[in-house]
Amino acid sequence: MSLNTYGHLFRVTTWGESHGPALGATVDGCPPGVPLTAPMIQHWLDKRRPGQNKMTTQRNEPDAVEILSGVFEDTTTGTPIQLMIRNTDQRSRDYGEIAETFRPGHADITYWQKYGIRDYRGGGRSSARETAARVAAGGVARAAIKALAPAVTIKGYMVRMGEKTIDRARFDWDAIDTNDFWCPDPGVIEDWTDYLNWLRKDDHNSVGAVIEVVARGVPAGIGAPVYAKLDTDLAAAMMSINAVKGVEIGEGMAAAALTGRDNADEITMGPNGPDYSSNHAGGILGGISTGQDIVVRFAVKPTSSILSPRKSIRKDGTATEVITKGRHDPCVGIRAVPVGEAMMAAVILDHLLLDRGQTGGVRGPIG
Amino acid sequence: MSLNTYGHLFRVTTWGESHGPALGATVDGCPPGVPLTAPMIQHWLDKRRPGQNKMTTQRNEPDAVEILSGVFEDTTTGTPIQLMIRNTDQRSRDYGEIAETFRPGHADITYWQKYGIRDYRGGGRSSARETAARVAAGGVARAAIKALAPAVTIKGYMVRMGEKTIDRARFDWDAIDTNDFWCPDPGVIEDWTDYLNWLRKDDHNSVGAVIEVVARGVPAGIGAPVYAKLDTDLAAAMMSINAVKGVEIGEGMAAAALTGRDNADEITMGPNGPDYSSNHAGGILGGISTGQDIVVRFAVKPTSSILSPRKSIRKDGTATEVITKGRHDPCVGIRAVPVGEAMMAAVILDHLLLDRGQTGGVRGPIG
Amino acid sequence: MSLNTYGHLFRVTTWGESHGPALGATVDGCPPGVPLTAPMIQHWLDKRRPGQNKMTTQRNEPDAVEILSGVFEDTTTGTPIQLMIRNTDQRSRDYGEIAETFRPGHADITYWQKYGIRDYRGGGRSSARETAARVAAGGVARAAIKALAPAVTIKGYMVRMGEKTIDRARFDWDAIDTNDFWCPDPGVIEDWTDYLNWLRKDDHNSVGAVIEVVARGVPAGIGAPVYAKLDTDLAAAMMSINAVKGVEIGEGMAAAALTGRDNADEITMGPNGPDYSSNHAGGILGGISTGQDIVVRFAVKPTSSILSPRKSIRKDGTATEVITKGRHDPCVGIRAVPVGEAMMAAVILDHLLLDRGQTGGVRGPIG
Amino acid sequence: MSLNTYGHLFRVTTWGESHGPALGATVDGCPPGVPLTAPMIQHWLDKRRPGQNKMTTQRNEPDAVEILSGVFEDTTTGTPIQLMIRNTDQRSRDYGEIAETFRPGHADITYWQKYGIRDYRGGGRSSARETAARVAAGGVARAAIKALAPAVTIKGYMVRMGEKTIDRARFDWDAIDTNDFWCPDPGVIEDWTDYLNWLRKDDHNSVGAVIEVVARGVPAGIGAPVYAKLDTDLAAAMMSINAVKGVEIGEGMAAAALTGRDNADEITMGPNGPDYSSNHAGGILGGISTGQDIVVRFAVKPTSSILSPRKSIRKDGTATEVITKGRHDPCVGIRAVPVGEAMMAAVILDHLLLDRGQTGGVRGPIG
Repeated sequence: MSLNTYGHLFRVTTWGESHGPALGATVDGCPPGVPLTAPMIQHWLDKRRPGQNKMTTQRNEPDAVEILSGVFEDTTTGTPIQLMIRNTDQRSRDYGEIAETFRPGHADITYWQKYGIRDYRGGGRSSARETAARVAAGGVARAAIKALAPAVTIKGYMVRMGEKTIDRARFDWDAIDTNDFWCPDPGVIEDWTDYLNWLRKDDHNSVGAVIEVVARGVPAGIGAPVYAKLDTDLAAAMMSINAVKGVEIGEGMAAAALTGRDNADEITMGPNGPDYSSNHAGGILGGISTGQDIVVRFAVKPTSSILSPRKSIRKDGTATEVITKGRHDPCVGIRAVPVGEAMMAAVILDHLLLDRGQTGGVRGPIG
Repeated sequence: MSLNTYGHLFRVTTWGESHGPALGATVDGCPPGVPLTAPMIQHWLDKRRPGQNKMTTQRNEPDAVEILSGVFEDTTTGTPIQLMIRNTDQRSRDYGEIAETFRPGHADITYWQKYGIRDYRGGGRSSARETAARVAAGGVARAAIKALAPAVTIKGYMVRMGEKTIDRARFDWDAIDTNDFWCPDPGVIEDWTDYLNWLRKDDHNSVGAVIEVVARGVPAGIGAPVYAKLDTDLAAAMMSINAVKGVEIGEGMAAAALTGRDNADEITMGPNGPDYSSNHAGGILGGISTGQDIVVRFAVKPTSSILSPRKSIRKDGTATEVITKGRHDPCVGIRAVPVGEAMMAAVILDHLLLDRGQTGGVRGPIG
Repeated sequence: MSLNTYGHLFRVTTWGESHGPALGATVDGCPPGVPLTAPMIQHWLDKRRPGQNKMTTQRNEPDAVEILSGVFEDTTTGTPIQLMIRNTDQRSRDYGEIAETFRPGHADITYWQKYGIRDYRGGGRSSARETAARVAAGGVARAAIKALAPAVTIKGYMVRMGEKTIDRARFDWDAIDTNDFWCPDPGVIEDWTDYLNWLRKDDHNSVGAVIEVVARGVPAGIGAPVYAKLDTDLAAAMMSINAVKGVEIGEGMAAAALTGRDNADEITMGPNGPDYSSNHAGGILGGISTGQDIVVRFAVKPTSSILSPRKSIRKDGTATEVITKGRHDPCVGIRAVPVGEAMMAAVILDHLLLDRGQTGGVRGPIG
Repeated sequence: MSLNTYGHLFRVTTWGESHGPALGATVDGCPPGVPLTAPMIQHWLDKRRPGQNKMTTQRNEPDAVEILSGVFEDTTTGTPIQLMIRNTDQRSRDYGEIAETFRPGHADITYWQKYGIRDYRGGGRSSARETAARVAAGGVARAAIKALAPAVTIKGYMVRMGEKTIDRARFDWDAIDTNDFWCPDPGVIEDWTDYLNWLRKDDHNSVGAVIEVVARGVPAGIGAPVYAKLDTDLAAAMMSINAVKGVEIGEGMAAAALTGRDNADEITMGPNGPDYSSNHAGGILGGISTGQDIVVRFAVKPTSSILSPRKSIRKDGTATEVITKGRHDPCVGIRAVPVGEAMMAAVILDHLLLDRGQTGGVRGPIG
């Protein structure tokens, strides 16, 4: 894969900085004949859009997507789809100090060290705005999945914010879209809201989160045994999102604590094929989907941009303290939910295409 | 990346099954002029080799590597290096039952569903033997790193086995090579040994593990901002290893529990460039190395092959119980240590090459 | 390579149709620190732009390029560069007949057969307009080459139009930019002009051409021995241009008629390294540059869009005759000159980067 | 594509030198369930094998292929197929002079300049022996094509040797396999034989050739519009073969001499779909197959290894004359015939897989 591209057959290249004229995604390899309109993509962008509620940055941009190519009469043609989003809320300001200072926890210092140049306005390419392009591309992937494998549904949600976790006993799919956290546990919303408000206003702080993304209805047999494993590509997809520091499939890191007897997903024969007694594997065995729910989790670190002072240095090596004012999410993990969904969609579509390319859909019968 | 290949410029394609005539790695893109001999690679293979101690499978193979191409007068020529390892200990046996049955937790069922054919002898391509090819390729990567960036050292070790964890206060680099677990805490060896013996002999069970791999001395500036992030490629590399279910960079999943103030790695100016007060980031900011230790952890699930019976089905859909006899590691995580080191080496070398390809080594000065 | 991308490290993905809102190129992997402005790219686009003279289509568009990302303060940052060109002269018309008919020699029929959908307005993706994006990307490549290897110059020109060929004895570099054909032989211009005018106005016909592109000053040692040979990548680059049907390196097809004695480029030692008595090889031996001029030629077929009727069928299988009215070049090869230069630039830069990635610039000394 | 790999989904990486222990091909992405045995591959290798007749080098090696992986019970499993060919006839000799001298027309000098090291024994990686690996991989491609698209046949033949060309009026498919030149014109065999014998024995010289490869029965609709055009990939495939200097599709370079009226392949409706009045396009329009014969030609330069002295230099820069003794083909183009067929097979299969990956086989109906 090249520097800014992901995918084997469904290939997405994102481009653009936080404060340039626009950003977007070049989507190559989409199947032809897929119904696709800008509003279909906008639907997902609106989920991610900042300024939607009090929990996210107050930067308020419409994030309106334009389809510049690859779609004719509301249908994909099989040629590259260019998705462009104009940057509209780039407040003009004095970047003098920011240009010379490295914010702790940001890519400022490593960009400078690597390239000898950096677009210091709003983080440039490392800004969370890059994820808007992912969400747009994910909208294309979702449209294609709907055409190819309509049984598939993809859903992301927060299961942890800082020290606070959900109670899985109260898990409610329908609750996810009803609160500001995309949280499936309605019992925690009030507490999380209070905590986040306090964190931002009083503690001048931020907090991390864990997002879980589930793909349901994915047929058995997509993926590959070794490097292009479905879990490999999912791990890469999620880890490529800004601020993500860990990725888990199924049991994830907790698998290390289990014994083989406890971790076994026993197999029985069900009415529609194999059934499993559990899903420790997260729907993937040997890199290939089992037909169960594909379950991925990733950890988003707390936003480094906080109002509390942190020690740092300037380009000239002198010491300084950094307080990051401006419009920053106290829990950037919230907006990572639609981003994780988009990456899941892109990977699932890519593997659906890859599988039919290599195998043509041959399947070993059971029963 | 294709199905069985990893890397951008330093590209490794592994091939071969557990019970075929041989397996190996095709290594393309290695720099020319690197001193390389079979014994240099064998050194790392011997670390991974089964039958080394009581903690690992008793399958006893020399795993002798042959260099078939790309090396002339003990020096790499810049052309593809073919590394071949003969399979020598393929005990002949009756595969009748195994051929018809899907072992729970194995790729048996998904391979069958995807391809309509599978090499059922010893797991075929999904066998842990595939990792021998990775270790061989990692040996090439280490040799090239030694030539290009001699300050780099790469070390892996176990930090967790099942519920048992090391005490970081007793961390001793020199202890790692002195015990059967590649464990840096000498205080746990006796307990871990007893536990694993009991688990295997009495409990007929297996257990998971967490491996940590550190790359020290990596210069600041390798990696890339978005999809080819250093952490993305490390996550993919580790997740592509059999039985791995989670990958972490730096704080990993624990980053979700931290606040921004606690997670900040503050920057000061040191005698040799920027210094950091801590390394929550695991040596990577915005996908690019900081010059600190690069720290990756991954969880290996417990071996599915256990002597305890687990429910499953046969190809014809009938129910059965599976007890996996044979030579299996009670904690396959032990042998994953050299594999994780090999993957780290491959990724670091790949990014060293990629960086000098794109930037030519330009670096933004600090101080 | 993916469907619409070329290059290993310097990767260009073009997008856009003839009659959509815009087209462009996503350029990934450009080195950082390269001076780059829109006018620098516009310079090359203006060479290719239609409506420049009587010899090319009268479609008159400014083809104004916008840089949407990857450039900060007139300098590349090392992140993706998005180059967008708005389509402005899409005359509205009735496409009813065109939509149902396959023009002979066009991609109309194969697009329809492959995708089951096609953007019939102006050829969609198969329009020569796609080459504007290549020229824009080539402008970036030229800027980077200027920074990396300033001795390199790249020049293309027509050496044949239909049955008419240049006289190499009159070859004049300075003449190339002074005529409407980019022709290095000033002695043929009048004849070619008359011929082309007659062909278009009276004969209602079109004609093919041969373009030669030379890269001078390329250092010895770029390229690779087998699949990523410099000649392989040049062949692919040129053959990927619309309407190209043949590609030659050095002697090209004529090499088949030579004997080994005649074809040998003898080597002597010159003041600045090896000298060659001739350049039958076109500057490439074993896939790697020799330091001589790199010489590529390609044949462009005559435009299929002519005013003379040709037999064809409609989507419903009924017979028809096609006369292509509209604004079409009688010799599309003329505008292929800057396109060939752009592809040469992209390939040379890509291999400069690839070489320093793999070898770090090590060179075997001679003398 | 990486340095030694070709293909999108059906990916072949060749490895090995002329005088190392072995060479081969790592074939990734082959569909599962394809019947495949070593003798099936050996059949094609035997066509290319030296020492078959007086027209080719007398180096006599069995070139026996071993399948080391990816095949189980004579059927492909979908995992990587490793094909190994041992080098057995590496005559020991004194390489002292060769090691210090650059043979004109060989890659000796460019390898040295690029890598600073070269395997000077028999040309190393630039030896024509590398093409054995291509032929082996082509055997796999043929087997898979047979399973996927049994109507496809692929045939190569010589149409020119030096100044001597075939008479197309005498074209006889059945004659191709009956002479030492793979020549379809039985009327030229005696003359070509006399000429080549004289050239080798008396003139101490060699000669070039043009090979044509035809793929018949390829369905309409494979390929892609821009960079992954079928003609692009064919051009790259053929140009990547040692000593190839030109590639043509259909009319090839001659298209430049035609007018649009003459070059038009008019379309009529036939009983089984569209019919064409001619095939100037070589079976490809807009990068996509039309269903007609796919016709590719490539020029092979005369072997540089001749008994006539040619001027050159040594590594130390001193002048010398080179006479290449040893076992060399006077017309290496002869053995390029099965190599061209193999590359055609690999490209066709790759595009069959790519097409069903992206489009799933959707086809726009005609009539």
